[in-house]
Amino acid sequence: MRRVGILAHPRRPESQAVMEEVARTVEARGLSAWTDTSGLIQPDSLKESDFVVVIGGDGAILRAARLCAPFQVPVFGLNIGYLGFLTEAQPPQWEESLNRILAGHYWIESRLMITGSVWKNGECILHEDALNDVVVGRGAIANATRLDAYINDEWATSYNADGVIIATATGSTAYALAAGGPILPPELDNILLVPVAPHFSMERPVILAQGATVKIVVSPQNEWDTVVTIDGQTVVELNGGDSVEVRASEKRSHFIRLQGRNYFFRSLMDRMEPRFLPKHPPGR
Amino acid sequence: MRRVGILAHPRRPESQAVMEEVARTVEARGLSAWTDTSGLIQPDSLKESDFVVVIGGDGAILRAARLCAPFQVPVFGLNIGYLGFLTEAQPPQWEESLNRILAGHYWIESRLMITGSVWKNGECILHEDALNDVVVGRGAIANATRLDAYINDEWATSYNADGVIIATATGSTAYALAAGGPILPPELDNILLVPVAPHFSMERPVILAQGATVKIVVSPQNEWDTVVTIDGQTVVELNGGDSVEVRASEKRSHFIRLQGRNYFFRSLMDRMEPRFLPKHPPGR
Amino acid sequence: MRRVGILAHPRRPESQAVMEEVARTVEARGLSAWTDTSGLIQPDSLKESDFVVVIGGDGAILRAARLCAPFQVPVFGLNIGYLGFLTEAQPPQWEESLNRILAGHYWIESRLMITGSVWKNGECILHEDALNDVVVGRGAIANATRLDAYINDEWATSYNADGVIIATATGSTAYALAAGGPILPPELDNILLVPVAPHFSMERPVILAQGATVKIVVSPQNEWDTVVTIDGQTVVELNGGDSVEVRASEKRSHFIRLQGRNYFFRSLMDRMEPRFLPKHPPGR
Amino acid sequence: MRRVGILAHPRRPESQAVMEEVARTVEARGLSAWTDTSGLIQPDSLKESDFVVVIGGDGAILRAARLCAPFQVPVFGLNIGYLGFLTEAQPPQWEESLNRILAGHYWIESRLMITGSVWKNGECILHEDALNDVVVGRGAIANATRLDAYINDEWATSYNADGVIIATATGSTAYALAAGGPILPPELDNILLVPVAPHFSMERPVILAQGATVKIVVSPQNEWDTVVTIDGQTVVELNGGDSVEVRASEKRSHFIRLQGRNYFFRSLMDRMEPRFLPKHPPGR
Repeated sequence: MRRVGILAHPRRPESQAVMEEVARTVEARGLSAWTDTSGLIQPDSLKESDFVVVIGGDGAILRAARLCAPFQVPVFGLNIGYLGFLTEAQPPQWEESLNRILAGHYWIESRLMITGSVWKNGECILHEDALNDVVVGRGAIANATRLDAYINDEWATSYNADGVIIATATGSTAYALAAGGPILPPELDNILLVPVAPHFSMERPVILAQGATVKIVVSPQNEWDTVVTIDGQTVVELNGGDSVEVRASEKRSHFIRLQGRNYFFRSLMDRMEPRFLPKHPPGR
Repeated sequence: MRRVGILAHPRRPESQAVMEEVARTVEARGLSAWTDTSGLIQPDSLKESDFVVVIGGDGAILRAARLCAPFQVPVFGLNIGYLGFLTEAQPPQWEESLNRILAGHYWIESRLMITGSVWKNGECILHEDALNDVVVGRGAIANATRLDAYINDEWATSYNADGVIIATATGSTAYALAAGGPILPPELDNILLVPVAPHFSMERPVILAQGATVKIVVSPQNEWDTVVTIDGQTVVELNGGDSVEVRASEKRSHFIRLQGRNYFFRSLMDRMEPRFLPKHPPGR
Repeated sequence: MRRVGILAHPRRPESQAVMEEVARTVEARGLSAWTDTSGLIQPDSLKESDFVVVIGGDGAILRAARLCAPFQVPVFGLNIGYLGFLTEAQPPQWEESLNRILAGHYWIESRLMITGSVWKNGECILHEDALNDVVVGRGAIANATRLDAYINDEWATSYNADGVIIATATGSTAYALAAGGPILPPELDNILLVPVAPHFSMERPVILAQGATVKIVVSPQNEWDTVVTIDGQTVVELNGGDSVEVRASEKRSHFIRLQGRNYFFRSLMDRMEPRFLPKHPPGR
Repeated sequence: MRRVGILAHPRRPESQAVMEEVARTVEARGLSAWTDTSGLIQPDSLKESDFVVVIGGDGAILRAARLCAPFQVPVFGLNIGYLGFLTEAQPPQWEESLNRILAGHYWIESRLMITGSVWKNGECILHEDALNDVVVGRGAIANATRLDAYINDEWATSYNADGVIIATATGSTAYALAAGGPILPPELDNILLVPVAPHFSMERPVILAQGATVKIVVSPQNEWDTVVTIDGQTVVELNGGDSVEVRASEKRSHFIRLQGRNYFFRSLMDRMEPRFLPKHPPGR
């Protein structure tokens, strides 16, 4: 390893001090470090980096992972704030973590990404990768939208709902979880389809194979605004007849992991289990 | 009975012919009839009416019932289109239904309404009745909003969700149902609290007594737009610190019913049960 | 107040020491105390008691409350073990709690009970009160049972399910919660109907008025064992054609409360909220 | 093709006439046919068969598919009664269907099976394949059982629930669906973990990779009976400390299909969608 990027959170000043400390330590080990506090990372910086340290929560890591994916640069998440699903260490342990990474005691977790293509009048106007989800749903007014869902080019069902989420395993603990979806550990390459607040239409989540294509067509009868949101960041308004196609991306996200390969369920239970339950495994 | 209002659906021309037929029949029986195709009914017309016939679906009847409530004028819903929960008859039976009403063979169903009061900077800027629900939730971007919920002036929980629905029994088959809420038959005066897509926050619906007050405060930490929607019609944008108070209204909605008093569960099952099940009661 | 019963948990020896300490303290204040470690309380003892202290968890308090209800003797729950919904204090605070009770600084919470009547061949063979729930469901083999549900003597729906729970507000945080039901604060007198694992039949919980009658008839087509369980204690096997009727009981359970009248939601959130959320109310 | 087995339903006499007609037709085409009305099929008969026609519902086909799996003999389901997920044709079309099969106009659908191994005192006492599910759950009394769940030999969570279902994609429309699980189309090789009525423990279904191992250990603290049920047929009682291991089987089930490869979602929607919705695809 020769070159490491270190990213502070643009709107959390407390992350800058951590960034500077990490940079000093990296350089003290003879590596080159670059830092960023703007959130607007240059592809040139990424291309030459062995990995990137992101200081922040799941949102910051999501953004960084999307930027790093095209260059296959792995991300190491240093968590500040609430516990996250994508972060790997807490600031107090960062030096120990860094030592382990530089000593090669880590593994690379590769996660599926999906691509959302937005079609208007027979033309693809947007084509973007998501690590979490592509959401087609209502605009500001809380009224159901009518969406026709096609799986592998055949009509599967029509939703009358706030929206429908097409998610990766990574996204299964994000909005899809809130909408009632199941949990998929991050190594799964399945695609998850979850309606949000379905009204007298198909309620259950559907799991699809990695190779599946999902197409959501906005029904021409729709009286209300419909929008597509990609990873909670890119937002495009849709009209009746517009459609969004989602399939597995050719790119994947990569994360540096220090915990054991089954870390996911422990991390999940720390968040999901009711507060008064014991946190330790059962005595045997 | 002396005077009857007959309302067509402003955007469904096929409802006008039905309206005119009903009006002719009403007048042939020696009653006075007034008609409306605009959807903008004058209070003066309502005040002097014994009842109002509404031709349309649940949406049209909801609008009419809200207008009629202050004058305690009951509504009779003549359904066109999909089966509805508020409608009472289908067009082919309207004449028979009218005969039964004029002969006094009906009962009046009274349903709870709730009042939503919107507070901004210590001032109540809106105060409006709802027959279905008051919804506090996210705007156009599909990101969770943070809402603090107070029941009877004490903090109950904080939602991190697409929104929270405060509904009547009538509203329990509308948006609250889509969000995972339970069913309340229309004679119940309970108030129902249902979160929409809660993320690591309280997931279960809560049932409250008729006398309860619910206050939803938009968290000052909120980064995103929040809006309050009353009966899917009135929409107000909210900022951090703004709040919405909901309690039972002094007004109630009234409906003319010809079916038996337990009509609700049959009507519900016609909609909710999977298609391939038998529709008839069990043989005994 | 003159006479107090103090009940240890029959199978938890550690509760006996607490029982004896409480008894000594009660007598030191000039009241008469009786104790029990058997779980088999004599009605004569109850009749003359001003209240009963129960040392144990929700199960022990449920049993005691059922025994006390006919005599309108209130129960005070001293919790050992997991946090409970029915208990009111933890052992370290028992002396302070007792002082407050003897000084009259408490309120009595009255909770609805329901009565389950089991009918076989046209005869009522059992009639028993429940504070939590009456459950009609499958026996040992995990196969759905077919149950016809009547509300106020009219057929409402037919369940194909593991079972159906008819619960009080108190029971809404017990088995009904596990089966997906909503939360009802304990002051509500509604009756709650929740199916367990319904398969292609009505999935949503239904809330009924206090005066409602629910009848569950075991379908004659049933191939499998069906049983009715009352408050998790009384279990009766049912055959095709047998039925169970549930309605509000004339008796109610009474609890001594020291916490504020809105204690329920705080207590609920301590159990339901994910572990990593803040426990305090929002700063304002 | 030379030899075909034709199985009537042992307890549905009306299936015998169909069986005999099918047998006559098969023989008229120059093939050899054997029939069975007992439900107890001899392995020798299966070994030499090109395929087996099963007349009945999903239960009968499940039983036959389990028997046929070791010999890789595909099953063709002729449905009598309610629409099923495993059946492929209705009796009126059987002759046309048979013609298509004999003409080679079909495809073979291969579905994952799982193996449940039951361990008591360090010994494996049972080892059996399931096409739908392995269920570890409560016995006759409706009380939660405590189950520790290990995924790939690491503790994932502990359930306090009626039970936990480990299901295949095929089983995702059976008991797992009733318990709130997601839908997996039959070509998926994932393993599905769904708790039944979880009480203050992990509620969400979990999806695992085909290679995953799930181990459910009955907690030694359990006060109640626990049983394991394999495909709703084999039932074994478990004590505290006993465990059940589930992983993908080496055998698979095979079905003869005449419908298109995406038949599953149409068939699913016919069952799941509310009765009053349109059944046809959206007009475009």
